[in-house]
Amino acid sequence: MRRIKLLVAYDGTDYCGWQFQPNAKTVEGTLRQALARLLGTEPETFGASRTDAGVHALGNVVVFDTDSTIPGERFSYALNAFLPEDIRVLASEEVPSEFHPRFDCHTKRYEYRIAEGRVCLPTRCRYVHLVRSKLDVAAMDEAAKRVVGTFDFSSFCATGAQVESRVRTITSCEVYRDGKEIVIGVEGDGFLYHMVRILAGTLIRVGEHAYLPEQVTDILVSKDRTKAGPTAPARGLQLCHIQY
Amino acid sequence: MRRIKLLVAYDGTDYCGWQFQPNAKTVEGTLRQALARLLGTEPETFGASRTDAGVHALGNVVVFDTDSTIPGERFSYALNAFLPEDIRVLASEEVPSEFHPRFDCHTKRYEYRIAEGRVCLPTRCRYVHLVRSKLDVAAMDEAAKRVVGTFDFSSFCATGAQVESRVRTITSCEVYRDGKEIVIGVEGDGFLYHMVRILAGTLIRVGEHAYLPEQVTDILVSKDRTKAGPTAPARGLQLCHIQY
Repeated sequence: MRRIKLLVAYDGTDYCGWQFQPNAKTVEGTLRQALARLLGTEPETFGASRTDAGVHALGNVVVFDTDSTIPGERFSYALNAFLPEDIRVLASEEVPSEFHPRFDCHTKRYEYRIAEGRVCLPTRCRYVHLVRSKLDVAAMDEAAKRVVGTFDFSSFCATGAQVESRVRTITSCEVYRDGKEIVIGVEGDGFLYHMVRILAGTLIRVGEHAYLPEQVTDILVSKDRTKAGPTAPARGLQLCHIQY
Repeated sequence: MRRIKLLVAYDGTDYCGWQFQPNAKTVEGTLRQALARLLGTEPETFGASRTDAGVHALGNVVVFDTDSTIPGERFSYALNAFLPEDIRVLASEEVPSEFHPRFDCHTKRYEYRIAEGRVCLPTRCRYVHLVRSKLDVAAMDEAAKRVVGTFDFSSFCATGAQVESRVRTITSCEVYRDGKEIVIGVEGDGFLYHMVRILAGTLIRVGEHAYLPEQVTDILVSKDRTKAGPTAPARGLQLCHIQY
């Protein structure tokens, strides 16, 4: 058996998230169907990031094992012929059989995009979260710096999420303007359930002057989800890059 | 009766173009339905540009007449409540009853977006045309300058289009890189059926070195549609701005 690694980009708008579900249209399910058409048999797949419904990816990483003799780098061409346009395999290669996309991952980078104003442009509404108020980006960026480091991120984790440890390391977090949009860029060794979206919701509250930047440290230390801001909508979120 | 002017943006992907059709989902038809829900009666609408299926707009201009007492600038808020997210009224105002969005229009600006490579990013595939080859943008820009002026644009008009005159004035045409995409920006007093898409298809051929930039002048002078390049796909095209 050979292990093949795929770099997968998708527009998550029309999918019930990454993870396979028997009765829902998911990115992983759609990818497995394409693999089944190509290989004649549907392999198990393992993704690096189980993105939520509506979340996009520029580079999720997936592996599967196969006896096929198709050269590793040809899988991207072959699979794209069987995939809808909103899922694309950007690259493929054969990897050692012990490679695991989730456990071997070093850092992940996410971006959360925000537009300000009363109306969202139709050509951007799938990819940005619209806020009514003008945001104080400098204050947001100041607050963002306060989550960089190794902390228990319980305040930024959806209640009920079952994980052994809520300690994660964020290696960088910055907020900046990109044209007419605001980007929250965050990189770390791993993220809890809804962590980036709760962080985005909290930083938006800072941008609206509902919280002071220094209050983000208090929220972090409290380990209390109710102290943080709301979970920002999925559409603004994109998994950008996974570093191995 | 009062005349109301709307500035309308849309993602044309899921529509059979702008113009109302009794048995197809069009942008104008969807807008009229929203007007009918707001006003209790469906008014006639007149749009500045009858964009094709799959073409987007950042600012099409539409008028309708009504006896409603809703203040002009409130229509945008009210209509957006009845419209799907892929159509948004960006602004609205009352205008003199003799104002006509098509005949009073001074210049229109369109942009055509191109991505190079083997795979189109899923989050951009609705808005760009993917070409396999690396394009020579400098040659495309040189060729673009050759259509600036007042000419008979028969070579850049879909065959069979019925218009009295095929003379139009292009006031500017330039090709440039915007991040990883290539943009053809063109402005003029009016455009023939498929004119921007045939121009885009021709400039892409220049970028591929299938035509020399100076051949665009020969194509223009020939007044022969078969001499120009193919009609580039609708998805790359966006109506950006209409100047009155």
